[in-house]
Amino acid sequence: MGASTEIPLVDHHCHGIFPGQPEDGFERWISESDRRSPDFDHLDATPLGMAIRAWCSPLLDLEPGASREEYVARRAEIAPEELNARLMRAAGVAELLVDTGITSLDLTPPDELAELAGAEGHEVVRIEEVAERALERSSSVAEFRQEFETALADRADSAVGLKTIVAYRTGLVVPDRPPETAVADRAIERALGQAGRARIDDPDLLHHGIWVGVELARAHRLPIQLHTGLGDTDVDISLADPGLLTPFIRATDGLGVNLTLLHCYPYHRTAGYLAAMYPNVYFDLGLSLNHAAGGARTVMAEAMEMAPFAKQLYASDAIGIAELHHLGALLFRRSLDAVLDGWIGDGLIRTADAERIAAAIASGNARRLYGLEGRSGTRPE
Amino acid sequence: MGASTEIPLVDHHCHGIFPGQPEDGFERWISESDRRSPDFDHLDATPLGMAIRAWCSPLLDLEPGASREEYVARRAEIAPEELNARLMRAAGVAELLVDTGITSLDLTPPDELAELAGAEGHEVVRIEEVAERALERSSSVAEFRQEFETALADRADSAVGLKTIVAYRTGLVVPDRPPETAVADRAIERALGQAGRARIDDPDLLHHGIWVGVELARAHRLPIQLHTGLGDTDVDISLADPGLLTPFIRATDGLGVNLTLLHCYPYHRTAGYLAAMYPNVYFDLGLSLNHAAGGARTVMAEAMEMAPFAKQLYASDAIGIAELHHLGALLFRRSLDAVLDGWIGDGLIRTADAERIAAAIASGNARRLYGLEGRSGTRPE
Amino acid sequence: MGASTEIPLVDHHCHGIFPGQPEDGFERWISESDRRSPDFDHLDATPLGMAIRAWCSPLLDLEPGASREEYVARRAEIAPEELNARLMRAAGVAELLVDTGITSLDLTPPDELAELAGAEGHEVVRIEEVAERALERSSSVAEFRQEFETALADRADSAVGLKTIVAYRTGLVVPDRPPETAVADRAIERALGQAGRARIDDPDLLHHGIWVGVELARAHRLPIQLHTGLGDTDVDISLADPGLLTPFIRATDGLGVNLTLLHCYPYHRTAGYLAAMYPNVYFDLGLSLNHAAGGARTVMAEAMEMAPFAKQLYASDAIGIAELHHLGALLFRRSLDAVLDGWIGDGLIRTADAERIAAAIASGNARRLYGLEGRSGTRPE
Repeated sequence: MGASTEIPLVDHHCHGIFPGQPEDGFERWISESDRRSPDFDHLDATPLGMAIRAWCSPLLDLEPGASREEYVARRAEIAPEELNARLMRAAGVAELLVDTGITSLDLTPPDELAELAGAEGHEVVRIEEVAERALERSSSVAEFRQEFETALADRADSAVGLKTIVAYRTGLVVPDRPPETAVADRAIERALGQAGRARIDDPDLLHHGIWVGVELARAHRLPIQLHTGLGDTDVDISLADPGLLTPFIRATDGLGVNLTLLHCYPYHRTAGYLAAMYPNVYFDLGLSLNHAAGGARTVMAEAMEMAPFAKQLYASDAIGIAELHHLGALLFRRSLDAVLDGWIGDGLIRTADAERIAAAIASGNARRLYGLEGRSGTRPE
Repeated sequence: MGASTEIPLVDHHCHGIFPGQPEDGFERWISESDRRSPDFDHLDATPLGMAIRAWCSPLLDLEPGASREEYVARRAEIAPEELNARLMRAAGVAELLVDTGITSLDLTPPDELAELAGAEGHEVVRIEEVAERALERSSSVAEFRQEFETALADRADSAVGLKTIVAYRTGLVVPDRPPETAVADRAIERALGQAGRARIDDPDLLHHGIWVGVELARAHRLPIQLHTGLGDTDVDISLADPGLLTPFIRATDGLGVNLTLLHCYPYHRTAGYLAAMYPNVYFDLGLSLNHAAGGARTVMAEAMEMAPFAKQLYASDAIGIAELHHLGALLFRRSLDAVLDGWIGDGLIRTADAERIAAAIASGNARRLYGLEGRSGTRPE
Repeated sequence: MGASTEIPLVDHHCHGIFPGQPEDGFERWISESDRRSPDFDHLDATPLGMAIRAWCSPLLDLEPGASREEYVARRAEIAPEELNARLMRAAGVAELLVDTGITSLDLTPPDELAELAGAEGHEVVRIEEVAERALERSSSVAEFRQEFETALADRADSAVGLKTIVAYRTGLVVPDRPPETAVADRAIERALGQAGRARIDDPDLLHHGIWVGVELARAHRLPIQLHTGLGDTDVDISLADPGLLTPFIRATDGLGVNLTLLHCYPYHRTAGYLAAMYPNVYFDLGLSLNHAAGGARTVMAEAMEMAPFAKQLYASDAIGIAELHHLGALLFRRSLDAVLDGWIGDGLIRTADAERIAAAIASGNARRLYGLEGRSGTRPE
């Protein structure tokens, strides 16, 4: 039994799942890519696909390593709610912090996701989504400023954190102070002048939004989550290196605003190093462990090389299908325990240390960072 | 016996070898560097040198791990053609895709290399070499454009792919569309005005060449190979990160033009990730496995963390000496099998999966990508 | 017994330690960060803290893995000189090359450090520190030029190497030639005009200093050490990638000036590759092994993938507390021996090769590079 086996996890960054069968097919959600390759079916095609067949099959009453055909057929037989509940509950998660910023998909809201998992649910608010909605409702710079700040503050009131996906838009070269008022105003003006207005791609406007978020986070003592590293086809991976955030990290550390670097691969060593340098930096491996399936232990070991034990978090970044919630937890536990067992074998730590470290990374750090102890979640009775 | 043991390989990116003894000595070709270090002889000096002594010696009738002196002496005793044939055939390669763009060295052409190996040979045409020769023959912009396009189309007619070495010149910040006509014209003009004209270093002209290549590749359904990552002393490694190609990758994916990222180290995780995101991205470890000898398994494991099984390829990138062809194949098989065995031991896959995955990476993917099945190679009767 | 067990090390890059108890507490020196995190005590909080408890405890007459409280209490009981001597001597170091450029701390000078360790001491002169002191003494451009060049030459006279910390100031984009005279003059002028003048942050002035150093290094045949990779909160890690040095490396290679890349993590693979390409590039893992404690073997293995055996060095980068000297040596030996044992097990090398490689990396390379054989150190009688 590993050091983390019995610990109910805090998944500090995840998304909802489809309550029914995904319209575009269950397998599409095994990949982060929206560009379908003609050459393969995901359940047969990637380490993550194999991991689902290997380790989710038993929860569908199949043998481990069931074939793609068996898995697909059996998955269609089980009622979606039953399937989702089985997979979510097996994850052993106590708290789910749900990014509600993907509004284009019909995903379960935090309370429903939490109910499926037998967990508490909490909301993380995506800054860009709030800004984009405020833009739709505004016709002048002043109106946008008012709408955006009010809406973000309202949303933050019941949330446990903010999130920015600037990595997906213009990358992680984020300035260490807010854009000048005139610069931000011109950016808002440009955005208001655009037809559609759906998606903010203007660096000045994105940076304005982040810095409004920083002020709010400071006032409300909320952490800010930042997507870093691997993502989908919107990410320019070279601009998603969390090392690029250094000036922004220094500035927010000075303000006492905590940051969590999400995913981080292939820059997870940089993330662990930043967590060792700056009191306000936390990080997770999010998406990376599920997608690295066979290499999850290696990635975990690298992330843990230099990171203080108090600074690493668990996140599944699961979205769409419950398998990703289940597998995220399973690979996290297996990888963490393997690294800690290695350290014990090497004489670096003892069993009691491993238990302490596992408890911190699996749940304690997130509870402290997000103030979850005194907080009631959205678990419905 | 590993999953790949019996599979004849497709080496989708390699070079010719010297038919006789290399003029500047056999050991110089153990390094990619043209700057000779005073401090060491390569057979004693690097993991690759040790690997040659360890694993090529038996093919020279020596014990594994023969001393440098024994190896050098014995190598000189065997007739070059016999030596080359022994090493090439032991590689177990069925198809050799040969980059013929290094014309400054007297290397075997594809058909002779294939004969030595008992394989089929195919040609990959280097865009920059064709452009540089066209430049020598041209005295006006219009003439160069005509010469270059005609020559590239002619060469492509009998080739299975194109290649660009822009990483060696100005790096991988390649635009997502062709340079404007006027911009390209001015670059051609500048190049025509230069004495010598041998080597194109102008980014506009290089990008023009690549985009002429993209159009041709699209029309002829040819993949384009891109050098990325480690190379020789011409490469600025920071500019050879394949992540920098993201805008170019998106653009060519939209056009249906496939790309293969070569070598990739130390950015091989980024390459695997790109292969997972974009249907048009394939990659190999090329040069990396030979030079990482003792760490080849680790590098392979990292490359396979996220890459779809249908997107990884085998390449030796061997040049000059037959040892590199032999060792490339040997280290590829050992590393791939070790990773797959690890996955079996971990419960991620089963033996039949390992065989399927090995077959894809070792040969199937390249056969499909380059359309090798219906194609007759240059194997002489 | 590992291949390196019996070899007295040359620590080619380290700092002095506090002769007494550090004023701000012993534990602060377990981290490179000057920003104290409220959440943890270092001895319990990081792999390095655990490594001190695991592997330094026996030298304090404690069981391996003593608790934080035991360690802190026992450390306070032993007289500082006794404690320092125990830890330093157990490191088994024969030569210490000491960077004397951190003048803000009351650290032991090279001769005293050497005496504690039973070793020879040598000095490495930090270019920026000499420039900053020359600035304080100068009131005109001409005076600064004269002061700086004279002082650097004087200091270099008794030193074995120079060092630059430009990575901490403006990063590793260092030009491949000296700044133009007029450009440097203007930079000196600006610096002279500043109140305080303590810290040089101007890229032109930093580059001027480095190039004065290059000329001196060339004349005196001294290597230049360059901080690269991880550091403290002054470093912008994205600008500390040694790959960025490529143009500077090429230029200095042409001049016959040797460079040593220090620390390198998380870019240590790039460093090993550069060492394989350029005759003038040497490197170490410095700081990285202590801070990666549980992952030190992995980091070492990656560094050794491509690096020629003649190009890698040992350094502890220890500063402030003797534990870092001891642990640096211990983790270096354990990691190096583990990698070499792995290579033996894999059939890549034999025991005699391992001994030769270990001897080179542990001491031979540094002796040759710094010309230590014919040189008397500062070991006092």
